[in-house]
Amino acid sequence: MTTDVPTAPAALPDPGRHLTSPTTRSVLRIKHHLVSAARAHLCEQGFTEVFPPIIGPVTDPGSRGSKQVDVDFYGHRYKLMTSAILYKQASLLAFDKIFCVAPNVRLEPLETASTSRHLAEFHQLDVEVAGASRDDAVQLVEDLVVHMVDSVVRELPKEFAELGRDVEAFTELLKGSFGRMRHAEAVSELQGLGHPQSPDAELDWTGEALLSGRRDRPFFVTDYPKGSRGFYDRENPDAPGLLKNFDLVAAEGYGELCSGSQRTNDYAEIVTRIRETGENPQKYRWYLDLVREGVPASAGFGIGVERLTRYVAGLDAVWQASAFPKLPGVVSP
Amino acid sequence: MTTDVPTAPAALPDPGRHLTSPTTRSVLRIKHHLVSAARAHLCEQGFTEVFPPIIGPVTDPGSRGSKQVDVDFYGHRYKLMTSAILYKQASLLAFDKIFCVAPNVRLEPLETASTSRHLAEFHQLDVEVAGASRDDAVQLVEDLVVHMVDSVVRELPKEFAELGRDVEAFTELLKGSFGRMRHAEAVSELQGLGHPQSPDAELDWTGEALLSGRRDRPFFVTDYPKGSRGFYDRENPDAPGLLKNFDLVAAEGYGELCSGSQRTNDYAEIVTRIRETGENPQKYRWYLDLVREGVPASAGFGIGVERLTRYVAGLDAVWQASAFPKLPGVVSP
Repeated sequence: MTTDVPTAPAALPDPGRHLTSPTTRSVLRIKHHLVSAARAHLCEQGFTEVFPPIIGPVTDPGSRGSKQVDVDFYGHRYKLMTSAILYKQASLLAFDKIFCVAPNVRLEPLETASTSRHLAEFHQLDVEVAGASRDDAVQLVEDLVVHMVDSVVRELPKEFAELGRDVEAFTELLKGSFGRMRHAEAVSELQGLGHPQSPDAELDWTGEALLSGRRDRPFFVTDYPKGSRGFYDRENPDAPGLLKNFDLVAAEGYGELCSGSQRTNDYAEIVTRIRETGENPQKYRWYLDLVREGVPASAGFGIGVERLTRYVAGLDAVWQASAFPKLPGVVSP
Repeated sequence: MTTDVPTAPAALPDPGRHLTSPTTRSVLRIKHHLVSAARAHLCEQGFTEVFPPIIGPVTDPGSRGSKQVDVDFYGHRYKLMTSAILYKQASLLAFDKIFCVAPNVRLEPLETASTSRHLAEFHQLDVEVAGASRDDAVQLVEDLVVHMVDSVVRELPKEFAELGRDVEAFTELLKGSFGRMRHAEAVSELQGLGHPQSPDAELDWTGEALLSGRRDRPFFVTDYPKGSRGFYDRENPDAPGLLKNFDLVAAEGYGELCSGSQRTNDYAEIVTRIRETGENPQKYRWYLDLVREGVPASAGFGIGVERLTRYVAGLDAVWQASAFPKLPGVVSP
């Protein structure tokens, strides 16, 4: 292995200075309380917290050009988890409503080190509900985020003051008033603004930030086109080519906070969808064996803990929401 | 990479059968509630939950012959975390009392697949307190474990009934009546029983199980000899050669639940101790840079979440306490 990787434009502060700064303390307290509030809210509704693996024979194929990390498990090539999706669906065999807070590693392209919104290592609050629809999941995210933000705003006034974050920014959010738009509408709006957004692809980072900067409340983007997202997002039988999925995007230009969908649990469809992405279904053997035996229909989502913390704390960059941030290509603890 | 690794003697059940079994459901509910109870107890005492990395330039050098896992982070050789110890000490720069619940990976020797008490991947509840002594940490573990077990016994009677676990087993534990013995006393007792325990080494698994099987309450073993444990365990100035550390061992033969110590935070001493283990201090650069600038004196511990769950649920093997267990050398999700 070599060390001649280009230095990313975004440098990280010295760990000692980062950890002792009053800003970091306030941010990490907000992060802790956001996660605590989420757990309390979900447990009250009968969710069970699960502890998924961080290594396994296969992981979420991911998206947007990030790479997976190989590990050698007693001579077998395993992967570090890029998300908990496969384990979430499997866990529904034990419980109808589950959540987890788990670390994920995605080797994002080096140029994302300066987007202010990418970390190579982050935590995700992952939720999955058997028998739920996409709309149930959207409602659950909305309720959950309102509860989380409401809790920290009430419990941590000193931390918001220290950060100079005006909690008036959450006036619309705290009313539970989130916007909704379809992917096709987002594409139209972006093209109208002169941004070259492809109608067949994920919203790009710049496009997402553009939409986010024009709004004062979080909003859902729904119905992404097939091919732009994971094989596990269910295709809409009434609108072939569109997926029953969504992103939650923050206001004020902070961009995406959460992705979710109703899931496919049909064996033949999953195998076809995996093949369509150019991957070999054989890789997913343990997962496909379970799906063939039958896993529940479900919907769920993952909230980026550091991204939500960044938005709530009003931070310039997402790395500020981590005690030991890892930026793409940058060597740090 | 090859696949001709010997099959471990302990086989795992089919994941679908494991996840749908009433035993697994009860066990995973007990696990969830144990962790929830711990979080509630620690938060009430002013602890902040932190989210340590799972990859980094260096990790806990580990013990008892387990191997670390390499990962390639943009051309740099990183390690998967074997414990959160280095990040726990560093986190005390931000907060005086911290905890985390984090996954760890240790490639234990293949022969441990059949000990009933080793997993290659597990979760640890890690706690660290600035300014605390070893005895403070022992007291904190005792209070914490009593609170955790008391909570699940009260909240989950159906799960204990389903498992056939007689909660009378916890009568002594719930009184807060834990035993205490020094490592030297443990060695004497074992040698008296005809077990060839070395006075200079960790208690071996068989020895630990022997002591554990002769007791009806958990007990602390303290003052392990230098050389048997990590470089971060503080040496006792009044008894050179002995460390200010401890293990908590379960009753009924279930063995070790938790390890902890008062930590060394002296730069020169840490460098010497690292050298004594045959390692190059240069590897620990980010950590040593922080220590040189000054990290707080502290004490802390890590509770093996699956091991505690196994003991509380009365399980034959620790893998039963994981939804997706990984045994040394065994390919599984």
